[in-house]
Amino acid sequence: MSKADNFKVTPYNVAGNVDYEKLISEFGTKPITGELMRRIEKLAGESHFMLRRGIFFTHRDLPWLLDEYEKGNAFYLYTGRGPSHHTHIGHLVPWIFTKWLQDRFGAKLIFMLTDDEKFLSEEKLDLNDTHQLAYDNALDVVALGFDPSKTEIIIDTDYAKTLYREALKIAKKINFSTVKAAFGFSGSTNIGFIFYTSIQAVPSILESVRKGERVPCLIPHGVDQDPHFRVTRDVLPHLGYYKPASIQSIFLPPLSGIQGKMSSSDPNNTIFVTDSPDTVKRKIRKYAFSGGQPTVEEHRRLGGNPDVDVSFQWLRIMFEPDDRRLNKIREDYLSGALLTGELKEILIEKINTFLAQHQEKREKAKNRLEDFLIRD
Amino acid sequence: MSKADNFKVTPYNVAGNVDYEKLISEFGTKPITGELMRRIEKLAGESHFMLRRGIFFTHRDLPWLLDEYEKGNAFYLYTGRGPSHHTHIGHLVPWIFTKWLQDRFGAKLIFMLTDDEKFLSEEKLDLNDTHQLAYDNALDVVALGFDPSKTEIIIDTDYAKTLYREALKIAKKINFSTVKAAFGFSGSTNIGFIFYTSIQAVPSILESVRKGERVPCLIPHGVDQDPHFRVTRDVLPHLGYYKPASIQSIFLPPLSGIQGKMSSSDPNNTIFVTDSPDTVKRKIRKYAFSGGQPTVEEHRRLGGNPDVDVSFQWLRIMFEPDDRRLNKIREDYLSGALLTGELKEILIEKINTFLAQHQEKREKAKNRLEDFLIRD
Repeated sequence: MSKADNFKVTPYNVAGNVDYEKLISEFGTKPITGELMRRIEKLAGESHFMLRRGIFFTHRDLPWLLDEYEKGNAFYLYTGRGPSHHTHIGHLVPWIFTKWLQDRFGAKLIFMLTDDEKFLSEEKLDLNDTHQLAYDNALDVVALGFDPSKTEIIIDTDYAKTLYREALKIAKKINFSTVKAAFGFSGSTNIGFIFYTSIQAVPSILESVRKGERVPCLIPHGVDQDPHFRVTRDVLPHLGYYKPASIQSIFLPPLSGIQGKMSSSDPNNTIFVTDSPDTVKRKIRKYAFSGGQPTVEEHRRLGGNPDVDVSFQWLRIMFEPDDRRLNKIREDYLSGALLTGELKEILIEKINTFLAQHQEKREKAKNRLEDFLIRD
Repeated sequence: MSKADNFKVTPYNVAGNVDYEKLISEFGTKPITGELMRRIEKLAGESHFMLRRGIFFTHRDLPWLLDEYEKGNAFYLYTGRGPSHHTHIGHLVPWIFTKWLQDRFGAKLIFMLTDDEKFLSEEKLDLNDTHQLAYDNALDVVALGFDPSKTEIIIDTDYAKTLYREALKIAKKINFSTVKAAFGFSGSTNIGFIFYTSIQAVPSILESVRKGERVPCLIPHGVDQDPHFRVTRDVLPHLGYYKPASIQSIFLPPLSGIQGKMSSSDPNNTIFVTDSPDTVKRKIRKYAFSGGQPTVEEHRRLGGNPDVDVSFQWLRIMFEPDDRRLNKIREDYLSGALLTGELKEILIEKINTFLAQHQEKREKAKNRLEDFLIRD
């Protein structure tokens, strides 16, 4: 948890204007240097805008993972989602990058939908709710085009026999003081939630358990999840496993401004993957925080500020992979040639094009879900 | 946990000279009155020496359970064991009584072998150890003659999908402060052990979950387990279930004296169900604490004290169901007519007769285990 006064990042709360550099030093992760980025790109055979732009900005043990890869010791990927609501576009950021990693490195992926976690942490949700939401969210994973022959989707309560068994071994090595410090738990925290981090740890050893030998694991995830894996990494070597490596992203900000993290509980400031074109239009026109000037005249004269403009940031983080086009937009916005309204229309067009395709694939995914889900 | 200075009773530690009357007031259970005993006996159609002698001495909500039974709302039984070692004869006390309850009330039994609990609480045991011990202990359950058509044996990690799912609902209602107070947990307690009580709670709702309607449950158990079910009872009504009723026994004391509880970790003071006749003979002759006098002459003159004599107590608690014979032994011991050595030989004969039969049934149980075990 950040000790800074103006922002806070835990798996269960992101608030304020996140200073990602400070977060690196507080969490104790490593920045992705230019050299490391080039190494990834070389092995991947191509570049990715989320790396070039620092959307994935920090890591743990990535050089080690690439060393192993070069030695022929292939890694698998692990990421996931807590199903507390429909998927929103912010969730897709690490998933899109994970898809790229799967494609470029031929890596197997375990995707975990933590219906248990969301049941335990959300007062109002019952276990049927979070279980149903897990199925709903799984459609978005499938829709992104992961390779069914290399992808397993786990819904926790559907795979609990395996998860519980392995989680016990991890849980035995983690005490209350540790999770209290990592997650800010107290005497009023429920005992399921206290135990939960050991369930989230399991996919990072699952391939090793199955194969009876150590298999490197890379976890692409939003930086707020780091406390879980920090605890996991401390424990696994004592059980004879590798520490999982990780590559961690910034958050997609809510429409209201670049502070905090997009959240399903604030629907006006969030675009859900199920939103209609008109809803997208309305939300962005009405709520997207603008870096522009109060009047057209002033904007033409002074230009806008893309660094605080949410529409520009969304293009940068997710919706405009082409650097040349993004730079053109940035320059035009800075110069005042591009008005906020025009910038918003560019974003609306991009999102609605993306969502039209996504929603179609999402429909088709309903018949393909069983190719991905595993149960015990 | 007892606040008294001279004894301590928790599910994980029994020490000192247990004052069972004090324990009733500290745990907040109800004593089994003569009236209640007669009511049980009337419904059962016969008396049981463990009731008559106060071996089962306290309860929770037993009159309610019997009311329901009389209304035609049958109850089921739930008991269990933590498989940290071979079964010892002390474990059999509640099981023998449970068998009687099954026979007399036609009740279904869920018997839980908590390999997860013992893995989490015993530093030196791994999960394969406790899982193997669970199978070993299950043989003793089957050997006692429970009705396979009415008995399910659960080994926790073999039924974890169901247990975890239901335990989550219970765990969400229990916070760390509660388990800290009930079990004496601290910051150094591992998070699996913190969660565990919610797993132990599940069989008390399992029949209700399966049938989709509330089914009364009676838990016969050693009084040290009461903190688990006290926590469980506080939670279940909030989830729409009945509180489980319980009927609770005193402990079979170790050979070393009437303090504490027989423990597998002290093998010289414990008789295991797998001990040979010679081992039984040796242990009792050598270690059974005597209430007799230092010399035969003094003993003949002053008599012995059956209240502190372990051999007599074992006859009372478990091995001499016949009141008339037990009283004769007691009187002879008090008068000095019966010497400690003679008393020990009576006990040795009783135990070895019991174990010879038990071990034979235990061997046969190896082929019958699958009739009892359930898995998910």
